[in-house]
Amino acid sequence: MFNYTATYTDLYQLTMAQAYFFHGQKDNIAVFDYFFRKLPFEGGYAIFAGLEDILDILQDIRFDRDDLDFLRTKGFKPEFLKFLEQFRFTGTIWSSLEGDVVFPVRPVLQVEALIIEAQIVETIILNVLNFQTLIATKASRMRLAAGENTLIDFGLRRAQGPGGYYASRACFVGGFNATSNVAAGRNYGIPVSGTMAHSYIESFDDELKAFSHFAEGQPEGCVLLVDTYDTLDSGLPNAILTAKMMEEKGQRLFGIRLDSGDLAYLSKQCREILDRAGLNYVKIASSNQLDEHIIKSLLEQQAPIDVFGVGTSLVTGAPDAALDGVYKLAFSGGKPRIKISENVKKITLPHRKQVFRVLDDDGRFAGADAVTMNTEQDVDIMYHPLFPDKSLAIGGKRKEPLLHKIVEGGRRLSPSTSLEEIARYSTERLKLLPEEYKRFNYPHVYKVGISGLLRNERDRLIAEKEV
Amino acid sequence: MFNYTATYTDLYQLTMAQAYFFHGQKDNIAVFDYFFRKLPFEGGYAIFAGLEDILDILQDIRFDRDDLDFLRTKGFKPEFLKFLEQFRFTGTIWSSLEGDVVFPVRPVLQVEALIIEAQIVETIILNVLNFQTLIATKASRMRLAAGENTLIDFGLRRAQGPGGYYASRACFVGGFNATSNVAAGRNYGIPVSGTMAHSYIESFDDELKAFSHFAEGQPEGCVLLVDTYDTLDSGLPNAILTAKMMEEKGQRLFGIRLDSGDLAYLSKQCREILDRAGLNYVKIASSNQLDEHIIKSLLEQQAPIDVFGVGTSLVTGAPDAALDGVYKLAFSGGKPRIKISENVKKITLPHRKQVFRVLDDDGRFAGADAVTMNTEQDVDIMYHPLFPDKSLAIGGKRKEPLLHKIVEGGRRLSPSTSLEEIARYSTERLKLLPEEYKRFNYPHVYKVGISGLLRNERDRLIAEKEV
Repeated sequence: MFNYTATYTDLYQLTMAQAYFFHGQKDNIAVFDYFFRKLPFEGGYAIFAGLEDILDILQDIRFDRDDLDFLRTKGFKPEFLKFLEQFRFTGTIWSSLEGDVVFPVRPVLQVEALIIEAQIVETIILNVLNFQTLIATKASRMRLAAGENTLIDFGLRRAQGPGGYYASRACFVGGFNATSNVAAGRNYGIPVSGTMAHSYIESFDDELKAFSHFAEGQPEGCVLLVDTYDTLDSGLPNAILTAKMMEEKGQRLFGIRLDSGDLAYLSKQCREILDRAGLNYVKIASSNQLDEHIIKSLLEQQAPIDVFGVGTSLVTGAPDAALDGVYKLAFSGGKPRIKISENVKKITLPHRKQVFRVLDDDGRFAGADAVTMNTEQDVDIMYHPLFPDKSLAIGGKRKEPLLHKIVEGGRRLSPSTSLEEIARYSTERLKLLPEEYKRFNYPHVYKVGISGLLRNERDRLIAEKEV
Repeated sequence: MFNYTATYTDLYQLTMAQAYFFHGQKDNIAVFDYFFRKLPFEGGYAIFAGLEDILDILQDIRFDRDDLDFLRTKGFKPEFLKFLEQFRFTGTIWSSLEGDVVFPVRPVLQVEALIIEAQIVETIILNVLNFQTLIATKASRMRLAAGENTLIDFGLRRAQGPGGYYASRACFVGGFNATSNVAAGRNYGIPVSGTMAHSYIESFDDELKAFSHFAEGQPEGCVLLVDTYDTLDSGLPNAILTAKMMEEKGQRLFGIRLDSGDLAYLSKQCREILDRAGLNYVKIASSNQLDEHIIKSLLEQQAPIDVFGVGTSLVTGAPDAALDGVYKLAFSGGKPRIKISENVKKITLPHRKQVFRVLDDDGRFAGADAVTMNTEQDVDIMYHPLFPDKSLAIGGKRKEPLLHKIVEGGRRLSPSTSLEEIARYSTERLKLLPEEYKRFNYPHVYKVGISGLLRNERDRLIAEKEV
């Protein structure tokens, strides 16, 4: 839907690329790590999302004539523009699988490519993965709060422009059942869903007429909005009349929707009245500024709500609004590379790497991911990235490597994974994460460590720079 | 760049449209108001943005064959799909001018159209205007903080996917000078700007070599990033050597960039050292998690920073991440309409309306906007929308009507306004807003009232519904 052209990048990627081009780095192979430093929403985990989209984008990325004409006016040199005309992404990508549970510091995705290519695609990789990972994580938290109840994305109207299109996709990765977003539903195969707005009811002189016309036209999955005038005095009685008319035709009203007022109180009242009217099959949907905390609280209050329609906080990832993912150089010109910082937390990890997840005897995640050099097959002790005295013995434990080679020479090594499969995988993986990491308040910290080899290499490079 | 198809909407808009179509509302004319209820960022004003984009979108909006095929699979009826095939937006739009200073409650834009059309375009209108108004407002606050210094949007990598494209546009409306976003720069004519990344420096074995190659290739506007290893011990001395080499060729280094550490301390140190080296023309740029509050604080500390590169908080509008704009029915079927709510703040205003801004004798904004029926030519007293006893005499004062008819029968009444003109207009308008409304902490509240006629109409409709 969005034309992710090669110019959807920061200008400096192109000025740097030109400098590489003219100064002996045309053939230089570099390795960059994509990772983030801070978990969003003060939570204990994140859900990795956006990978399939970025693979599609990288496969097609190029500069068209208009792009090149524009760059010419910005002073880029003819020889370099000629090179850009042929530009394709021909690199290799190792990555976590989309939908996996991921943690800070460790590489989530690793790009090995000509440094010019790796640099030009940096911005798009960050743009797509940061956003979708943020939203999938938010959605996953709502799924934890909602249990088996139905979750529908209603966020499009408050989404960040066309970001809403990809937000709907990420919501599905994170465990949502459906979206109101028709375009995303159509293109990504997400179930689409929707009820009616207050304006619809108001446009008829009579609420009952508005309901019955609607039910007549679309009896399947019909949900009536009951709070336009007065939920208990008007909306609900009219919905019950409509349900009874539908019963006469052998149809069933699917549900009612509450969009204002105290949702705990009103849902209980509505449930009781519906049940008394013999309509225990009619579901109760609710919306209005929901987030994971409100959903959790409503269900703790035993609000009999079956369907939650969630909008703004879901598709914008409020209050965080962004994941702090970065893309850092780890290898270039045949040598490992590092970024030094006064802030020791910002010192990067050199070399091509692998990440091992330690598993319990029953196959669940054991609370430890170890980052190693890519040449290591196993790791016995992992060290805290900042405090060398802090270490954890993980020898003899089952481990799984998390980074898989998925693109080589610019081509996918296996067919694309469907969104449904990704969502299913994400659900399974989240089940393997113990409860204490899923808590909303002060979740347990999942440990990410580095191997002794990697630590030594990092310290050696720091010492070199500081001489 | 983003293909805003007619299916970039909520499903319920289409199910409601179908209900209107089959139940006597095919020719019904409706009026909807776009407005918001809460100012973002706990600020005193908002900057209206996104209008030109939405006008372009509405001019082209239609359902293509794929859209219709998809809707067929969702159970929409053939007769209605045939209607959608011919669907165009043929309505009338009154609006505030893009870039204007706007306040809550009052209509910012008003759509009068066949109710089916007005409903189908609701989601896109909300999606575009909510987002761009949020970002233009954030950008404008940074402009207030930065004074005459240069502001550059560096946000693309943390933007909400393709939202970053429109964010860059809105930043320019709100007073930014340039963007790093090449695609937005190209398509919207925004100046593009950029420096270099740490990875560029690291990819050379030698910082000085990295600098001098870069300066050789692009001496115009060259900005060197000085904090890769050590700002004062390495980056700055190497930048000074590079500047001296450039001087020998008759060139001038444009600036240095600080991206970490204490920006106030480092900028002062760098300024002093640069000046001592005879490089007082070299500018200091800074970046790293800036927002309006940090920019303000840096300048209060007299940090000699000339250029601010701002990212995440700017393009995502964090911490708010969304503007709460809504689109409410005001007129339909020949009658004024209203939405009642337990929450009196959520009761809507009926009828076609106009908004008058009261001006001081010197032409500045006098702290009062009055919402009237569109038939009123002037207004002498405006009433608080919630407390009928609170009123303000505004008779005899100069006023300007804020809603202009800009689209009729689906066609623009005047040619489109360039982004530069919009940004210039916004700057001028913001100058007319007194300082106390621009304060970051507890700004003065700009009063929005309603005319006596409108108040009476609203109260009459409430009484009717409550009988």
